[in-house]
Amino acid sequence: MLSFANDYATGAHDKILQKLIETNRESLPGYGGDRYCESAREKIRAACQCSQAKIYFLSGGTQTNQVVIDALLADYEGVIAAKTGHISVHEAGAIEATGHKVLELPHREGKLAAEEIADYLAGFYGDVNHEHMVFPGMVYITHPTEYGTLYTKQELQDISQVCARYHIPLYLDGARLGYGLAVEGTDVTLPDLAAYCDAFYIGGTKVGALCGEAVVFPRKEPRHFMTLVKQHGALLAKGRLLGIQFDALFTDDLYLENGRNAIRMANMLRQAFANKGYSFYVETPANQIFIVLENGQMKRLGRQVLFDYWEKYDQDHTVVRFATSWDTDRWEVEELIALLG
Amino acid sequence: MLSFANDYATGAHDKILQKLIETNRESLPGYGGDRYCESAREKIRAACQCSQAKIYFLSGGTQTNQVVIDALLADYEGVIAAKTGHISVHEAGAIEATGHKVLELPHREGKLAAEEIADYLAGFYGDVNHEHMVFPGMVYITHPTEYGTLYTKQELQDISQVCARYHIPLYLDGARLGYGLAVEGTDVTLPDLAAYCDAFYIGGTKVGALCGEAVVFPRKEPRHFMTLVKQHGALLAKGRLLGIQFDALFTDDLYLENGRNAIRMANMLRQAFANKGYSFYVETPANQIFIVLENGQMKRLGRQVLFDYWEKYDQDHTVVRFATSWDTDRWEVEELIALLG
Amino acid sequence: MLSFANDYATGAHDKILQKLIETNRESLPGYGGDRYCESAREKIRAACQCSQAKIYFLSGGTQTNQVVIDALLADYEGVIAAKTGHISVHEAGAIEATGHKVLELPHREGKLAAEEIADYLAGFYGDVNHEHMVFPGMVYITHPTEYGTLYTKQELQDISQVCARYHIPLYLDGARLGYGLAVEGTDVTLPDLAAYCDAFYIGGTKVGALCGEAVVFPRKEPRHFMTLVKQHGALLAKGRLLGIQFDALFTDDLYLENGRNAIRMANMLRQAFANKGYSFYVETPANQIFIVLENGQMKRLGRQVLFDYWEKYDQDHTVVRFATSWDTDRWEVEELIALLG
Amino acid sequence: MLSFANDYATGAHDKILQKLIETNRESLPGYGGDRYCESAREKIRAACQCSQAKIYFLSGGTQTNQVVIDALLADYEGVIAAKTGHISVHEAGAIEATGHKVLELPHREGKLAAEEIADYLAGFYGDVNHEHMVFPGMVYITHPTEYGTLYTKQELQDISQVCARYHIPLYLDGARLGYGLAVEGTDVTLPDLAAYCDAFYIGGTKVGALCGEAVVFPRKEPRHFMTLVKQHGALLAKGRLLGIQFDALFTDDLYLENGRNAIRMANMLRQAFANKGYSFYVETPANQIFIVLENGQMKRLGRQVLFDYWEKYDQDHTVVRFATSWDTDRWEVEELIALLG
Repeated sequence: MLSFANDYATGAHDKILQKLIETNRESLPGYGGDRYCESAREKIRAACQCSQAKIYFLSGGTQTNQVVIDALLADYEGVIAAKTGHISVHEAGAIEATGHKVLELPHREGKLAAEEIADYLAGFYGDVNHEHMVFPGMVYITHPTEYGTLYTKQELQDISQVCARYHIPLYLDGARLGYGLAVEGTDVTLPDLAAYCDAFYIGGTKVGALCGEAVVFPRKEPRHFMTLVKQHGALLAKGRLLGIQFDALFTDDLYLENGRNAIRMANMLRQAFANKGYSFYVETPANQIFIVLENGQMKRLGRQVLFDYWEKYDQDHTVVRFATSWDTDRWEVEELIALLG
Repeated sequence: MLSFANDYATGAHDKILQKLIETNRESLPGYGGDRYCESAREKIRAACQCSQAKIYFLSGGTQTNQVVIDALLADYEGVIAAKTGHISVHEAGAIEATGHKVLELPHREGKLAAEEIADYLAGFYGDVNHEHMVFPGMVYITHPTEYGTLYTKQELQDISQVCARYHIPLYLDGARLGYGLAVEGTDVTLPDLAAYCDAFYIGGTKVGALCGEAVVFPRKEPRHFMTLVKQHGALLAKGRLLGIQFDALFTDDLYLENGRNAIRMANMLRQAFANKGYSFYVETPANQIFIVLENGQMKRLGRQVLFDYWEKYDQDHTVVRFATSWDTDRWEVEELIALLG
Repeated sequence: MLSFANDYATGAHDKILQKLIETNRESLPGYGGDRYCESAREKIRAACQCSQAKIYFLSGGTQTNQVVIDALLADYEGVIAAKTGHISVHEAGAIEATGHKVLELPHREGKLAAEEIADYLAGFYGDVNHEHMVFPGMVYITHPTEYGTLYTKQELQDISQVCARYHIPLYLDGARLGYGLAVEGTDVTLPDLAAYCDAFYIGGTKVGALCGEAVVFPRKEPRHFMTLVKQHGALLAKGRLLGIQFDALFTDDLYLENGRNAIRMANMLRQAFANKGYSFYVETPANQIFIVLENGQMKRLGRQVLFDYWEKYDQDHTVVRFATSWDTDRWEVEELIALLG
Repeated sequence: MLSFANDYATGAHDKILQKLIETNRESLPGYGGDRYCESAREKIRAACQCSQAKIYFLSGGTQTNQVVIDALLADYEGVIAAKTGHISVHEAGAIEATGHKVLELPHREGKLAAEEIADYLAGFYGDVNHEHMVFPGMVYITHPTEYGTLYTKQELQDISQVCARYHIPLYLDGARLGYGLAVEGTDVTLPDLAAYCDAFYIGGTKVGALCGEAVVFPRKEPRHFMTLVKQHGALLAKGRLLGIQFDALFTDDLYLENGRNAIRMANMLRQAFANKGYSFYVETPANQIFIVLENGQMKRLGRQVLFDYWEKYDQDHTVVRFATSWDTDRWEVEELIALLG
């Protein structure tokens, strides 16, 4: 069966497996103190053009969001996020479990607007009762968003400036960052993220690793962050598992190459959907394509290819998602296109 | 440099890597719903002779302790543990971070005694003010313990009976379980754990996996445990990474074989320490050997072999730990023995 | 200066103070075990026609919401509330601080509709990813609401039935319950609340007590609720302070009489606002009146009478709140009416 | 029945009730912003000779400990306390419920020794694994302690210096502070506490108030402490209730006078116990007297006087506590002495 269900359906890129095999019998220190973690950190610093960045490796996205957000917030603070943000909806309350409210703002195709954030912050501090409310302590955005859309450099800069004005950090969830960076025409680069964000993570799990996300603090890191990672149950004894993978991902541009493959495949598929007159739910440039299908058509297609149910569109139609990945082959796309009839 | 510092210094057993390679390009469902996870569960159920057991895979020990303990306790309850228990000392407050007190009892070489637990429980319910105190809601033990010691089947049974009398679950932390089960002369088996514990975990990280622990609920599982796993940031998108590893570990007795290698190597080393008149800090049957070294001797030896600082013994002596593992080679032990002079 | 700012600006009803004085030198058991607490419980049970109700006294509204909601929810659950609910906005994150998400639904004049709740619950369980989301574990409503509106008996029954269908408790925040019950024409009584809610609290602080709210569990109480109260720092050593006050409030119908005074005064004031052509922001039957004032008018009036800023209406107008209370005198209302010009 | 069970068995001092009555109909701002709170703050600042102190009023001791400790600790920190400290034993896990471990040290008659704390801190930072452990983030002591003992000024200074050396705050729980300050021969005064502690609270509930504790931050207060108080459910709408009481307690030396009465009565009683050859469990100078009674004698005496069960001494003897209070009359002591036979 063809699979376009998501971007974490297969294992790891061969180069990652290869590196795991090569280093397997080396005796290394635990908890992220090994030389592969250090090498990966150096390579990520170089890619971000940010030689002072502090970098940590965690296992998964929800975990990373939980640990970073909890570390950045004071007890009296919550995190601003889009109502559709991953932390708002699909993390089983991981943020609230650490005692912090997610302050949900309206979104536009998954994105937060700087002006919306600014209005919220002005409204908060303008409210005479704000000391009885949750202080907005940081801003959380995703790139690409849950709707597959991208921020422009200007938009990131605008949000960053709002945050700076209120002295709250901007944190970017890059679970699918590799795909976002690889989109033709995007003007957002890793050095931009290092410039505009106070923290962000470079997603590995969905971009070719077995597991792992690299958290980057470009300027200042939370105090005793490693202890907080441990306290959240997120510190791997064999930290090498993550370091080795990111070392491979940031060697010879593999991370971006993984991204580019998905984008090439998505573009092929997107073109075919357009040619055949399919209806797009939202215009997306990265590796996720949202299509409105008539329900009968959805059922028929579902017998031959895996895709993701997104949401009900109306009585007779459904929004579904097709995702390509670092591992999607051209023949898979061609077969899918053939099935589209 | 020779390394006897710990049992998680190298990567994974070859058979595990092999299986990861073989399955790498298979497109599989996420979050533990794949066929390798299911196969691993079946094999663990068989090994435990417990066909109804519910089994989950998590990434590491602290994470597993945190999620399981939080899931088993009511808000008004804490967990009884030895003062030296891993959750009491070396998890950076992971249990308290979820709102629960660790009720620390005295230990004997790392072990809790059934009688001590019974006395504590009787004392608690006999205290007229106990409603102002933290209710003892479960018992946590480790096997092998932090001191490398083992419970006997009788001791487990006794503790289990105390727990049953007070209707509180018994949870066993098996981070090094493979080594404990492989000790010659132990009468404790996996089916015994399934019989006496309400929850336990089979440690993978320290017994030959890249990462991963298998949580076993022999009879009853906490409600919506998967959601709790997610909420704690512990649910891997590529759950296959854990399932595949445990599938390999429970094929052809690999898990126990890994354990046995470490025990054979430890026994060789133990014999050598004894022959050469070294002083044992505590008698241990499994893969950890605790030796009291004169400080100068410790320094000299430390130049040629890695071992673990344990604790200060007196002004002139220090307790150190030598650990063998699934991956320790005979020549390494022989070289170390030669260095002991 | 006249004060219509809120309903907690003065001390306690004379009968309450009197009772505190009379009982002052009695030596009584602590923590709510005294005979006045017991007497108050009996009187509240009688008023609710619910002889099996479990009743606890806490100090304030946010505290009560926090303790009750945390006690009723499992770790994987959150609480459904109106976006404008007190717990959603004005409790500084007290619910999230205990690890639970507030699941915010749209409101109509502060009220939740049974249908809206039912749709949300159906949508949640219909979502294939719902195990990755926060389970809706209870419903929170306020009566009167933050907008001063009231549920009808039918509306409560409808919400109650939705909750029952999904086996989740309905909890009603009665911070201003005395005023709601005293409204002419309301068909909601204390026995109705005991019938339709799984938990509710009878607000004392805003209805004539120095402090104190009475939590009622008509059928089933959370296990070890007293210990949870203590754990949240909410158990008074001199529990008598609360018991004596509620004993007075539920003697000779004082609680309702307090409510009725506020309603009589509010009705007088409401009539005057209407006669003079003021614009009501929302129609409210209880002790809070929301008026849209032109900004200049607001400033002038504000020099002679205290009222509460509510929210900006437009560039030139503001919504303000006038509240009457158990303690509002007729002459105060008359003076205010004279000022309205 | 005579009552020496505790120091919170009766209501409030007459002067407090009188002040509540006098101010009852005044319309005042809520949440601690009223003029009585401000007046009480000023008087406490004067009594502490600390004009810059920040002062907050909370309702009870466990609540105060929970809010203050949570506010002072970072997420990765715990609080050092005596194994017998109130927060360690009798607060139902209130500290852990906010995510922080209580790091329990041995005590001597309820007291922590500066040297013991220093050793612990040196040991912690000397441990190479300390980043995997809970950081000691503050020190908690009680004065008088749970065993009724007192620190000397020198002892407080020594502990304070250890804390300063490690840059962690010293917090003193003064639930019974009024009794401690009133002991003849103590050299500890309120200005001393302001000098040596970073935070402490002046207990009202047990020293003549209906409820209420005054938290003093002599130098620096936690950021947005009021919001944290609210978030913990500890902010009273009618904050006046606490301000008025402390205003009375700190007028004409009432707080210390309340303390002195209890000490005079306790001294009378102590002398009588000594004269009659009773066995003291521990020497105590303040308002609590711990006596070892033969079990039969305990039963007989228990028929005529209330006292507190403390702990089992041996098979045939029990430790019990007799407490005097601000409200104990001379005739009560005389009757008790007569009963002692």
